[in-house]
Amino acid sequence: MQTVRTIADLRAQASAWRQGGGRVGLVPTMGGLHEGHLSLVRLAREHADHVIATLFVNPAQFAPNEDFDAYPRDEAADGDAFSNAGAELLFAPDIAEVYPPGHVTQVSVPGLSEVLDGAFRPHFFGGVATIAAKLLIQAMADVAVFGEKDYQQLQVIKRMARDLDIPTEILGAPTIREADGLAMSSRNRYLTEDERAAAPTIFAVLQEITDGVRGGVGANDLCAIGRARLLDVGFRDVDYVSVVDAETLQPATDASRPARALAAAWLGKARLIDNLPV
Amino acid sequence: MQTVRTIADLRAQASAWRQGGGRVGLVPTMGGLHEGHLSLVRLAREHADHVIATLFVNPAQFAPNEDFDAYPRDEAADGDAFSNAGAELLFAPDIAEVYPPGHVTQVSVPGLSEVLDGAFRPHFFGGVATIAAKLLIQAMADVAVFGEKDYQQLQVIKRMARDLDIPTEILGAPTIREADGLAMSSRNRYLTEDERAAAPTIFAVLQEITDGVRGGVGANDLCAIGRARLLDVGFRDVDYVSVVDAETLQPATDASRPARALAAAWLGKARLIDNLPV
Repeated sequence: MQTVRTIADLRAQASAWRQGGGRVGLVPTMGGLHEGHLSLVRLAREHADHVIATLFVNPAQFAPNEDFDAYPRDEAADGDAFSNAGAELLFAPDIAEVYPPGHVTQVSVPGLSEVLDGAFRPHFFGGVATIAAKLLIQAMADVAVFGEKDYQQLQVIKRMARDLDIPTEILGAPTIREADGLAMSSRNRYLTEDERAAAPTIFAVLQEITDGVRGGVGANDLCAIGRARLLDVGFRDVDYVSVVDAETLQPATDASRPARALAAAWLGKARLIDNLPV
Repeated sequence: MQTVRTIADLRAQASAWRQGGGRVGLVPTMGGLHEGHLSLVRLAREHADHVIATLFVNPAQFAPNEDFDAYPRDEAADGDAFSNAGAELLFAPDIAEVYPPGHVTQVSVPGLSEVLDGAFRPHFFGGVATIAAKLLIQAMADVAVFGEKDYQQLQVIKRMARDLDIPTEILGAPTIREADGLAMSSRNRYLTEDERAAAPTIFAVLQEITDGVRGGVGANDLCAIGRARLLDVGFRDVDYVSVVDAETLQPATDASRPARALAAAWLGKARLIDNLPV
Protein backbone atom coordinates (compact mmCIF):
# COMPACT_ATOMS: atom_id res chain seq x y z
CA MET A 1 0.00 0.00 0.00
CA GLN A 2 1.23 3.45 -0.90
CA THR A 3 1.66 6.00 1.89
CA VAL A 4 1.41 9.73 1.17
CA ARG A 5 2.12 12.56 3.60
CA THR A 6 0.99 15.65 1.71
CA ILE A 7 -2.43 16.92 0.73
CA ALA A 8 -1.13 17.43 -2.81
CA ASP A 9 -0.15 13.75 -3.14
CA LEU A 10 -3.46 12.64 -1.61
CA ARG A 11 -5.36 14.80 -4.11
CA ALA A 12 -3.31 13.60 -7.06
CA GLN A 13 -4.13 9.95 -6.35
CA ALA A 14 -7.80 10.58 -5.53
CA SER A 15 -8.22 12.67 -8.71
CA ALA A 16 -6.56 10.01 -10.84
CA TRP A 17 -8.95 7.38 -9.50
CA ARG A 18 -11.97 9.62 -10.05
CA GLN A 19 -10.88 10.53 -13.56
CA GLY A 20 -10.56 6.83 -14.27
CA GLY A 21 -14.22 6.50 -13.38
CA GLY A 22 -13.63 4.88 -9.99
CA ARG A 23 -15.56 5.70 -6.85
CA VAL A 24 -13.35 6.77 -3.95
CA GLY A 25 -13.97 5.89 -0.28
CA LEU A 26 -12.39 7.59 2.73
CA VAL A 27 -11.86 6.16 6.22
CA PRO A 28 -10.46 8.77 8.61
CA THR A 29 -8.89 7.32 11.77
CA MET A 30 -6.49 8.26 14.54
CA GLY A 31 -4.81 4.83 14.33
CA GLY A 32 -4.62 2.44 17.27
CA LEU A 33 -6.42 0.04 14.95
CA HIS A 34 -8.76 -2.72 15.99
CA GLU A 35 -11.45 -4.73 14.22
CA GLY A 36 -13.82 -1.78 14.41
CA HIS A 37 -11.59 0.35 12.18
CA LEU A 38 -11.08 -2.52 9.76
CA SER A 39 -14.83 -2.96 9.45
CA LEU A 40 -14.99 0.68 8.32
CA VAL A 41 -12.49 -0.06 5.56
CA ARG A 42 -14.47 -3.12 4.48
CA LEU A 43 -17.71 -1.13 4.40
CA ALA A 44 -16.01 1.63 2.39
CA ARG A 45 -14.75 -1.01 -0.02
CA GLU A 46 -18.35 -2.16 -0.59
CA HIS A 47 -19.31 1.39 -1.61
CA ALA A 48 -16.16 2.42 -3.50
CA ASP A 49 -13.59 1.06 -5.91
CA HIS A 50 -10.63 2.56 -4.06
CA VAL A 51 -10.31 3.18 -0.33
CA ILE A 52 -8.10 5.81 1.28
CA ALA A 53 -7.40 5.33 5.00
CA THR A 54 -6.09 8.25 7.00
CA LEU A 55 -3.95 8.14 10.10
CA PHE A 56 -3.73 11.37 12.06
CA VAL A 57 -3.90 11.87 15.81
CA ASN A 58 -5.63 15.22 15.77
CA PRO A 59 -4.30 17.50 18.52
CA ALA A 60 -7.23 19.90 18.10
CA GLN A 61 -9.68 17.42 19.62
CA PHE A 62 -7.70 16.76 22.80
CA ALA A 63 -7.75 19.08 25.81
CA PRO A 64 -4.36 19.73 27.50
CA ASN A 65 -5.20 17.25 30.30
CA GLU A 66 -6.27 14.47 27.90
CA ASP A 67 -4.36 11.53 26.40
CA PHE A 68 -2.91 13.05 23.21
CA ASP A 69 0.62 11.93 24.12
CA ALA A 70 -0.45 8.48 25.34
CA TYR A 71 -2.68 7.77 22.32
CA PRO A 72 -1.39 4.60 20.61
CA ARG A 73 0.74 5.20 17.51
CA ASP A 74 2.09 2.38 15.31
CA GLU A 75 2.02 3.40 11.65
CA ALA A 76 3.69 0.24 10.34
CA ALA A 77 1.24 -2.13 12.02
CA ASP A 78 -1.74 0.09 11.21
CA GLY A 79 -0.67 0.36 7.57
CA ASP A 80 -0.46 -3.44 7.24
CA ALA A 81 -3.88 -3.86 8.84
CA PHE A 82 -5.45 -1.22 6.57
CA SER A 83 -3.91 -2.86 3.53
CA ASN A 84 -5.14 -6.32 4.49
CA ALA A 85 -8.64 -4.91 4.96
CA GLY A 86 -8.64 -3.49 1.44
CA ALA A 87 -7.32 0.08 1.64
CA GLU A 88 -5.10 1.11 -1.27
CA LEU A 89 -3.72 4.41 -0.01
CA LEU A 90 -2.65 5.57 3.45
CA PHE A 91 -2.67 9.31 4.12
CA ALA A 92 -0.49 9.92 7.17
CA PRO A 93 0.33 13.64 7.31
CA ASP A 94 2.34 15.30 10.05
CA ILE A 95 0.81 18.06 12.16
CA ALA A 96 2.40 20.91 10.16
CA GLU A 97 0.85 19.61 6.92
CA VAL A 98 -2.62 19.70 8.48
CA TYR A 99 -2.23 22.82 10.63
CA PRO A 100 0.47 25.00 9.05
CA PRO A 101 1.57 28.15 10.88
CA GLY A 102 -1.23 30.71 10.92
CA HIS A 103 -4.04 28.14 10.72
CA VAL A 104 -6.98 29.59 12.67
CA THR A 105 -10.21 28.59 10.92
CA GLN A 106 -12.73 26.62 12.97
CA VAL A 107 -15.82 24.70 11.92
CA SER A 108 -18.50 24.37 14.57
CA VAL A 109 -21.82 22.58 14.72
CA PRO A 110 -23.84 24.34 17.42
CA GLY A 111 -26.64 22.37 19.06
CA LEU A 112 -25.11 18.94 18.47
CA SER A 113 -21.78 19.82 20.05
CA GLU A 114 -22.56 21.11 23.54
CA VAL A 115 -24.56 18.12 24.84
CA LEU A 116 -23.40 14.66 26.02
CA ASP A 117 -19.64 14.36 25.34
CA GLY A 118 -19.54 18.04 24.41
CA ALA A 119 -20.55 19.01 27.95
CA PHE A 120 -17.51 17.16 29.31
CA ARG A 121 -15.06 17.82 26.47
CA PRO A 122 -15.95 21.39 25.44
CA HIS A 123 -13.38 21.67 22.63
CA PHE A 124 -13.84 18.16 21.30
CA PHE A 125 -16.47 18.56 18.59
CA GLY A 126 -15.01 21.82 17.32
CA GLY A 127 -11.77 19.92 16.78
CA VAL A 128 -13.64 16.99 15.23
CA ALA A 129 -15.77 19.10 12.88
CA THR A 130 -12.75 21.09 11.70
CA ILE A 131 -10.50 18.08 10.98
CA ALA A 132 -13.38 16.17 9.38
CA ALA A 133 -14.21 19.13 7.11
CA LYS A 134 -10.55 19.40 6.11
CA LEU A 135 -10.12 15.68 5.40
CA LEU A 136 -13.36 15.51 3.43
CA ILE A 137 -12.39 18.56 1.35
CA GLN A 138 -8.84 17.23 0.87
CA ALA A 139 -9.97 13.83 -0.40
CA MET A 140 -13.29 14.78 -2.06
CA ALA A 141 -14.26 11.13 -1.81
CA ASP A 142 -17.60 9.80 -2.98
CA VAL A 143 -18.21 8.19 0.39
CA ALA A 144 -16.64 8.44 3.85
CA VAL A 145 -17.19 5.97 6.67
CA PHE A 146 -17.22 6.69 10.41
CA GLY A 147 -18.09 4.33 13.25
CA GLU A 148 -21.40 4.41 15.12
CA LYS A 149 -19.38 3.70 18.26
CA ASP A 150 -18.65 7.46 18.24
CA TYR A 151 -22.30 8.20 17.64
CA GLN A 152 -22.34 11.90 18.51
CA GLN A 153 -19.26 12.45 16.36
CA LEU A 154 -21.01 10.71 13.47
CA GLN A 155 -24.05 13.00 13.84
CA VAL A 156 -21.83 16.11 14.04
CA ILE A 157 -19.94 15.08 10.90
CA LYS A 158 -23.12 14.23 8.98
CA ARG A 159 -24.62 17.61 9.84
CA MET A 160 -21.40 19.48 9.03
CA ALA A 161 -20.96 17.76 5.66
CA ARG A 162 -24.58 18.44 4.70
CA ASP A 163 -24.45 22.07 5.85
CA LEU A 164 -21.18 22.84 4.05
CA ASP A 165 -22.44 21.09 0.90
CA ILE A 166 -19.51 18.67 0.87
CA PRO A 167 -20.44 16.20 -1.89
CA THR A 168 -19.40 13.12 0.06
CA GLU A 169 -21.91 10.61 1.39
CA ILE A 170 -21.30 10.02 5.13
CA LEU A 171 -21.92 6.42 6.18
CA GLY A 172 -22.08 5.11 9.73
CA ALA A 173 -20.73 1.62 10.39
CA PRO A 174 -22.11 -0.61 13.16
CA THR A 175 -20.11 -0.91 16.38
CA ILE A 176 -17.87 -3.97 16.56
CA ARG A 177 -17.83 -5.66 19.97
CA GLU A 178 -15.70 -8.13 21.89
CA ALA A 179 -17.34 -11.49 22.69
CA ASP A 180 -18.55 -10.11 26.05
CA GLY A 181 -20.16 -7.05 24.45
CA LEU A 182 -17.50 -4.41 25.14
CA ALA A 183 -17.35 -2.00 22.20
CA MET A 184 -13.91 -2.11 20.58
CA SER A 185 -11.93 1.05 21.28
CA SER A 186 -8.31 2.13 21.04
CA ARG A 187 -8.63 3.20 24.66
CA ASN A 188 -9.56 -0.29 25.93
CA ARG A 189 -5.83 -0.98 26.08
CA TYR A 190 -5.59 1.49 28.99
CA LEU A 191 -7.64 -0.97 31.14
CA THR A 192 -6.15 -3.25 33.83
CA GLU A 193 -7.33 -6.85 33.95
CA ASP A 194 -9.91 -6.09 36.66
CA GLU A 195 -11.15 -3.02 34.81
CA ARG A 196 -11.41 -5.02 31.60
CA ALA A 197 -13.65 -7.51 33.41
CA ALA A 198 -15.99 -4.72 34.57
CA ALA A 199 -15.98 -2.82 31.26
CA PRO A 200 -18.78 -4.73 29.45
CA THR A 201 -21.22 -3.47 32.08
CA ILE A 202 -21.55 -0.25 30.05
CA PHE A 203 -22.99 -2.33 27.17
CA ALA A 204 -25.18 -4.35 29.55
CA VAL A 205 -26.57 -1.13 31.04
CA LEU A 206 -27.40 0.26 27.59
CA GLN A 207 -29.15 -3.01 26.69
CA GLU A 208 -31.24 -2.82 29.87
CA ILE A 209 -32.19 0.76 29.07
CA THR A 210 -33.18 0.12 25.47
CA ASP A 211 -35.10 -3.04 26.47
CA GLY A 212 -36.79 -1.12 29.28
CA VAL A 213 -37.77 1.86 27.13
CA ARG A 214 -39.23 -0.50 24.53
CA GLY A 215 -41.16 -2.14 27.38
CA GLY A 216 -42.62 1.20 28.45
CA VAL A 217 -40.40 1.99 31.46
CA GLY A 218 -39.41 5.66 31.85
CA ALA A 219 -36.01 6.50 30.40
CA ASN A 220 -35.01 8.73 33.32
CA ASP A 221 -35.52 5.93 35.85
CA LEU A 222 -33.63 3.44 33.68
CA CYS A 223 -30.72 5.86 33.23
CA ALA A 224 -30.51 6.48 36.99
CA ILE A 225 -30.42 2.72 37.65
CA GLY A 226 -27.80 2.27 34.93
CA ARG A 227 -25.61 5.01 36.37
CA ALA A 228 -25.76 3.39 39.83
CA ARG A 229 -24.88 0.01 38.40
CA LEU A 230 -21.79 1.38 36.62
CA LEU A 231 -20.55 2.90 39.86
CA ASP A 232 -21.27 -0.40 41.66
CA VAL A 233 -19.05 -2.45 39.36
CA GLY A 234 -16.10 -0.09 39.69
CA PHE A 235 -16.53 2.78 37.20
CA ARG A 236 -15.06 5.75 39.07
CA ASP A 237 -17.12 8.46 37.41
CA VAL A 238 -20.16 8.47 35.12
CA ASP A 239 -20.26 11.45 32.76
CA TYR A 240 -23.72 10.64 31.42
CA VAL A 241 -26.27 7.88 30.82
CA SER A 242 -28.96 9.34 28.55
CA VAL A 243 -31.69 8.61 26.08
CA VAL A 244 -31.91 11.32 23.39
CA ASP A 245 -33.41 12.01 19.97
CA ALA A 246 -31.24 10.02 17.57
CA GLU A 247 -30.69 12.93 15.18
CA THR A 248 -30.85 16.13 17.24
CA LEU A 249 -29.32 14.59 20.41
CA GLN A 250 -31.77 16.68 22.44
CA PRO A 251 -33.99 15.12 25.14
CA ALA A 252 -36.21 12.48 23.52
CA THR A 253 -39.71 13.87 23.99
CA ASP A 254 -41.38 12.67 20.78
CA ALA A 255 -41.99 8.91 21.00
CA SER A 256 -42.57 8.73 17.23
CA ARG A 257 -38.96 9.68 16.46
CA PRO A 258 -35.96 7.33 16.69
CA ALA A 259 -34.09 7.58 19.98
CA ARG A 260 -30.62 6.52 21.07
CA ALA A 261 -29.25 5.50 24.47
CA LEU A 262 -25.70 6.70 25.13
CA ALA A 263 -23.30 6.46 28.05
CA ALA A 264 -19.82 7.72 28.93
CA ALA A 265 -18.00 6.65 32.06
CA TRP A 266 -14.48 6.46 33.47
CA LEU A 267 -12.87 3.15 34.33
CA GLY A 268 -9.35 3.74 35.67
CA LYS A 269 -7.48 5.78 33.05
CA ALA A 270 -9.97 5.03 30.28
CA ARG A 271 -13.02 7.06 29.41
CA LEU A 272 -15.36 4.56 27.74
CA ILE A 273 -18.33 5.49 25.58
CA ASP A 274 -20.98 3.32 23.99
CA ASN A 275 -24.48 3.64 22.54
CA LEU A 276 -27.41 1.62 21.23
CA PRO A 277 -30.53 2.42 19.21
CA VAL A 278 -33.73 2.34 21.23
CA MET B 1 -26.88 33.32 -19.94
CA GLN B 2 -28.23 30.30 -18.11
CA THR B 3 -29.58 30.78 -14.58
CA VAL B 4 -29.60 27.90 -12.08
CA ARG B 5 -31.18 27.88 -8.64
CA THR B 6 -30.00 24.60 -7.14
CA ILE B 7 -26.61 23.42 -5.95
CA ALA B 8 -27.10 20.25 -7.98
CA ASP B 9 -27.54 22.22 -11.22
CA LEU B 10 -24.57 24.45 -10.37
CA ARG B 11 -22.39 21.38 -9.77
CA ALA B 12 -23.56 19.66 -12.94
CA GLN B 13 -22.51 22.62 -15.12
CA ALA B 14 -19.23 23.24 -13.28
CA SER B 15 -18.31 19.53 -13.48
CA ALA B 16 -19.13 19.40 -17.18
CA TRP B 17 -16.83 22.36 -17.84
CA ARG B 18 -14.04 20.87 -15.75
CA GLN B 19 -14.36 17.48 -17.40
CA GLY B 20 -14.10 19.23 -20.73
CA GLY B 21 -10.70 20.52 -19.59
CA GLY B 22 -11.91 24.07 -18.95
CA ARG B 23 -10.88 26.19 -15.98
CA VAL B 24 -13.81 27.49 -13.96
CA GLY B 25 -13.97 30.90 -12.28
CA LEU B 26 -16.39 31.97 -9.55
CA VAL B 27 -17.56 35.50 -8.70
CA PRO B 28 -19.77 35.53 -5.58
CA THR B 29 -21.87 38.70 -5.19
CA MET B 30 -24.94 39.97 -3.40
CA GLY B 31 -26.10 41.79 -6.51
CA GLY B 32 -26.70 45.53 -6.63
CA LEU B 33 -24.16 45.47 -9.44
CA HIS B 34 -21.82 48.28 -10.39
CA GLU B 35 -18.58 48.49 -12.37
CA GLY B 36 -16.67 47.02 -9.42
CA HIS B 37 -18.56 43.74 -9.65
CA LEU B 38 -18.16 43.62 -13.41
CA SER B 39 -14.40 44.08 -13.06
CA LEU B 40 -14.41 40.92 -10.90
CA VAL B 41 -16.09 39.00 -13.71
CA ARG B 42 -13.57 40.32 -16.24
CA LEU B 43 -10.65 39.37 -13.98
CA ALA B 44 -12.15 35.89 -13.46
CA ARG B 45 -12.49 35.58 -17.24
CA GLU B 46 -8.76 36.29 -17.60
CA HIS B 47 -7.99 33.35 -15.28
CA ALA B 48 -10.70 30.90 -16.35
CA ASP B 49 -12.48 29.61 -19.44
CA HIS B 50 -15.93 29.75 -17.87
CA VAL B 51 -17.19 32.19 -15.25
CA ILE B 52 -20.00 31.52 -12.80
CA ALA B 53 -21.48 34.59 -11.11
CA THR B 54 -23.56 34.14 -7.98
CA LEU B 55 -26.34 36.35 -6.72
CA PHE B 56 -27.38 35.78 -3.13
CA VAL B 57 -28.15 38.36 -0.46
CA ASN B 58 -26.84 36.38 2.50
CA PRO B 59 -29.04 36.92 5.56
CA ALA B 60 -26.38 35.41 7.86
CA GLN B 61 -24.08 38.41 7.42
CA PHE B 62 -26.67 41.05 8.34
CA ALA B 63 -27.59 41.90 11.94
CA PRO B 64 -31.33 42.42 12.64
CA ASN B 65 -30.89 46.22 12.60
CA GLU B 66 -28.97 46.26 9.31
CA ASP B 67 -30.12 46.75 5.72
CA PHE B 68 -30.96 43.18 4.63
CA ASP B 69 -34.45 44.20 3.50
CA ALA B 70 -33.31 47.44 1.83
CA TYR B 71 -30.38 45.82 0.00
CA PRO B 72 -30.86 46.37 -3.75
CA ARG B 73 -32.26 43.36 -5.65
CA ASP B 74 -32.73 43.32 -9.44
CA GLU B 75 -31.94 39.89 -10.82
CA ALA B 76 -32.87 40.68 -14.41
CA ALA B 77 -30.62 43.74 -14.66
CA ASP B 78 -27.81 42.04 -12.74
CA GLY B 79 -28.03 38.98 -14.97
CA ASP B 80 -27.71 41.10 -18.13
CA ALA B 81 -24.74 42.97 -16.69
CA PHE B 82 -23.00 39.73 -15.65
CA SER B 83 -23.58 38.26 -19.08
CA ASN B 84 -22.23 41.33 -20.87
CA ALA B 85 -19.11 41.19 -18.69
CA GLY B 86 -18.44 37.58 -19.69
CA ALA B 87 -20.18 35.34 -17.15
CA GLU B 88 -21.77 32.19 -18.63
CA LEU B 89 -23.77 30.93 -15.67
CA LEU B 90 -25.75 32.72 -12.96
CA PHE B 91 -26.30 30.88 -9.69
CA ALA B 92 -29.20 32.59 -7.91
CA PRO B 93 -30.45 30.26 -5.18
CA ASP B 94 -33.20 31.07 -2.73
CA ILE B 95 -32.54 31.11 1.00
CA ALA B 96 -33.94 27.61 1.62
CA GLU B 97 -31.54 26.12 -0.94
CA VAL B 98 -28.55 27.63 0.86
CA TYR B 99 -29.78 27.27 4.44
CA PRO B 100 -32.27 24.39 4.53
CA PRO B 101 -34.13 23.67 7.80
CA GLY B 102 -31.72 22.38 10.44
CA HIS B 103 -28.67 24.17 9.00
CA VAL B 104 -26.45 25.07 11.97
CA THR B 105 -22.81 24.73 10.92
CA GLN B 106 -20.64 27.82 11.22
CA VAL B 107 -17.20 28.59 9.85
CA SER B 108 -15.18 31.12 11.82
CA VAL B 109 -11.81 32.75 11.32
CA PRO B 110 -10.70 33.94 14.75
CA GLY B 111 -8.16 36.75 14.89
CA LEU B 112 -9.09 38.28 11.54
CA SER B 113 -12.79 38.57 12.39
CA GLU B 114 -12.99 40.54 15.63
CA VAL B 115 -11.04 43.63 14.58
CA LEU B 116 -12.03 46.61 12.36
CA ASP B 117 -15.47 45.86 10.83
CA GLY B 118 -15.77 42.81 13.08
CA ALA B 119 -15.73 45.03 16.17
CA PHE B 120 -18.77 46.91 14.85
CA ARG B 121 -20.53 44.03 13.08
CA PRO B 122 -19.86 41.09 15.43
CA HIS B 123 -21.70 38.46 13.36
CA PHE B 124 -20.56 39.71 9.98
CA PHE B 125 -17.43 37.67 9.29
CA GLY B 126 -18.91 34.47 10.68
CA GLY B 127 -21.69 34.89 8.13
CA VAL B 128 -19.20 35.76 5.41
CA ALA B 129 -16.82 32.86 6.13
CA THR B 130 -19.69 30.35 6.23
CA ILE B 131 -21.36 31.45 2.98
CA ALA B 132 -17.99 31.76 1.22
CA ALA B 133 -16.99 28.23 2.33
CA LYS B 134 -20.32 26.90 1.09
CA LEU B 135 -20.15 28.66 -2.29
CA LEU B 136 -16.54 27.61 -2.84
CA ILE B 137 -17.34 23.98 -1.97
CA GLN B 138 -20.49 24.07 -4.12
CA ALA B 139 -18.72 25.36 -7.21
CA MET B 140 -15.23 23.86 -6.69
CA ALA B 141 -13.94 26.47 -9.11
CA ASP B 142 -10.30 26.79 -10.04
CA VAL B 143 -10.30 30.46 -9.13
CA ALA B 144 -12.65 32.78 -7.23
CA VAL B 145 -12.50 36.56 -7.33
CA PHE B 146 -13.42 38.98 -4.52
CA GLY B 147 -12.99 42.76 -4.42
CA GLU B 148 -10.23 44.49 -2.47
CA LYS B 149 -12.84 47.12 -1.61
CA ASP B 150 -13.96 44.65 1.08
CA TYR B 151 -10.38 44.13 2.15
CA GLN B 152 -10.98 42.47 5.52
CA GLN B 153 -13.52 40.13 3.92
CA LEU B 154 -10.95 39.20 1.29
CA GLN B 155 -8.37 38.37 3.97
CA VAL B 156 -10.91 36.32 5.95
CA ILE B 157 -11.88 34.34 2.84
CA LYS B 158 -8.26 33.79 1.79
CA ARG B 159 -7.40 32.47 5.26
CA MET B 160 -10.54 30.29 5.44
CA ALA B 161 -9.96 28.76 2.01
CA ARG B 162 -6.33 28.01 2.82
CA ASP B 163 -7.14 26.57 6.25
CA LEU B 164 -9.95 24.34 4.98
CA ASP B 165 -7.80 23.18 2.05
CA ILE B 166 -10.34 24.35 -0.50
CA PRO B 167 -8.53 23.91 -3.83
CA THR B 168 -9.65 27.23 -5.28
CA GLU B 169 -7.26 30.11 -5.81
CA ILE B 170 -8.64 33.27 -4.17
CA LEU B 171 -7.87 36.42 -6.15
CA GLY B 172 -8.38 39.99 -4.99
CA ALA B 173 -9.45 42.56 -7.60
CA PRO B 174 -8.50 46.25 -7.33
CA THR B 175 -11.16 48.68 -6.11
CA ILE B 176 -13.03 50.50 -8.86
CA ARG B 177 -13.67 54.18 -8.13
CA GLU B 178 -15.89 56.97 -9.38
CA ALA B 179 -14.10 59.92 -11.09
CA ASP B 180 -13.86 61.75 -7.77
CA GLY B 181 -12.27 58.77 -5.98
CA LEU B 182 -15.31 57.34 -4.17
CA ALA B 183 -15.07 53.55 -4.11
CA MET B 184 -17.99 52.00 -5.96
CA SER B 185 -20.43 50.30 -3.61
CA SER B 186 -23.99 49.04 -3.76
CA ARG B 187 -24.64 51.18 -0.70
CA ASN B 188 -23.66 54.46 -2.41
CA ARG B 189 -27.22 54.61 -3.74
CA TYR B 190 -28.40 55.25 -0.15
CA LEU B 191 -26.63 58.68 -0.28
CA THR B 192 -28.43 61.99 -0.76
CA GLU B 193 -26.91 64.53 -3.17
CA ASP B 194 -25.13 66.41 -0.37
CA GLU B 195 -23.86 63.21 1.16
CA ARG B 196 -22.63 62.00 -2.22
CA ALA B 197 -20.60 65.23 -2.52
CA ALA B 198 -18.94 64.61 0.86
CA ALA B 199 -18.40 60.86 0.35
CA PRO B 200 -15.06 60.99 -1.54
CA THR B 201 -13.43 62.47 1.57
CA ILE B 202 -13.04 58.92 2.89
CA PHE B 203 -10.73 58.19 -0.07
CA ALA B 204 -8.93 61.52 0.33
CA VAL B 205 -8.30 60.81 4.00
CA LEU B 206 -6.86 57.37 3.20
CA GLN B 207 -4.59 58.93 0.58
CA GLU B 208 -3.34 61.48 3.12
CA ILE B 209 -2.66 58.71 5.61
CA THR B 210 -0.78 56.46 3.20
CA ASP B 211 1.22 59.43 1.84
CA GLY B 212 1.95 60.57 5.40
CA VAL B 213 3.06 57.13 6.61
CA ARG B 214 5.36 56.81 3.61
CA GLY B 215 6.75 60.24 4.49
CA GLY B 216 7.52 59.12 8.05
CA VAL B 217 4.57 60.67 9.93
CA GLY B 218 3.12 58.54 12.73
CA ALA B 219 0.05 56.53 11.70
CA ASN B 220 -1.84 57.24 14.91
CA ASP B 221 -1.63 61.01 14.39
CA LEU B 222 -2.65 60.72 10.75
CA CYS B 223 -5.63 58.52 11.64
CA ALA B 224 -6.79 60.97 14.33
CA ILE B 225 -6.59 63.84 11.82
CA GLY B 226 -8.45 61.78 9.22
CA ARG B 227 -11.21 60.90 11.67
CA ALA B 228 -11.68 64.59 12.53
CA ARG B 229 -11.80 65.53 8.87
CA LEU B 230 -14.52 62.98 8.13
CA LEU B 231 -16.65 64.37 10.95
CA ASP B 232 -15.98 67.91 9.65
CA VAL B 233 -17.35 67.19 6.18
CA GLY B 234 -20.55 65.62 7.51
CA PHE B 235 -19.90 61.95 8.30
CA ARG B 236 -22.09 61.36 11.35
CA ASP B 237 -20.03 58.58 12.92
CA VAL B 238 -16.58 57.16 12.28
CA ASP B 239 -16.27 53.48 13.19
CA TYR B 240 -12.51 53.34 12.59
CA VAL B 241 -9.62 54.88 10.71
CA SER B 242 -6.66 52.52 11.11
CA VAL B 243 -3.35 51.38 9.71
CA VAL B 244 -2.81 47.65 10.25
CA ASP B 245 -0.65 44.75 9.08
CA ALA B 246 -1.94 43.92 5.59
CA GLU B 247 -2.25 40.19 6.28
CA THR B 248 -2.93 39.76 10.01
CA LEU B 249 -4.98 43.00 10.35
CA GLN B 250 -3.34 43.50 13.75
CA PRO B 251 -1.66 46.80 14.68
CA ALA B 252 1.18 47.48 12.22
CA THR B 253 4.30 47.35 14.39
CA ASP B 254 6.80 45.83 11.95
CA ALA B 255 7.75 48.44 9.34
CA SER B 256 9.22 45.74 7.09
CA ARG B 257 5.81 44.14 6.51
CA PRO B 258 3.10 45.45 4.15
CA ALA B 259 0.50 47.63 5.86
CA ARG B 260 -2.97 48.75 4.87
CA ALA B 261 -4.96 51.85 5.79
CA LEU B 262 -8.68 51.22 6.28
CA ALA B 263 -11.66 53.33 7.26
CA ALA B 264 -15.36 52.85 7.94
CA ALA B 265 -17.75 55.73 8.56
CA TRP B 266 -21.44 56.53 8.43
CA LEU B 267 -22.81 59.10 6.03
CA GLY B 268 -26.58 59.38 6.43
CA LYS B 269 -28.02 55.88 5.99
CA ALA B 270 -24.88 54.49 4.36
CA ARG B 271 -21.97 52.87 6.11
CA LEU B 272 -19.04 53.44 3.75
CA ILE B 273 -15.77 51.50 3.87
CA ASP B 274 -12.58 51.95 1.89
CA ASN B 275 -8.90 51.01 2.09
CA LEU B 276 -5.54 51.62 0.46
CA PRO B 277 -2.15 49.91 0.59
CA VAL B 278 0.50 51.87 2.49
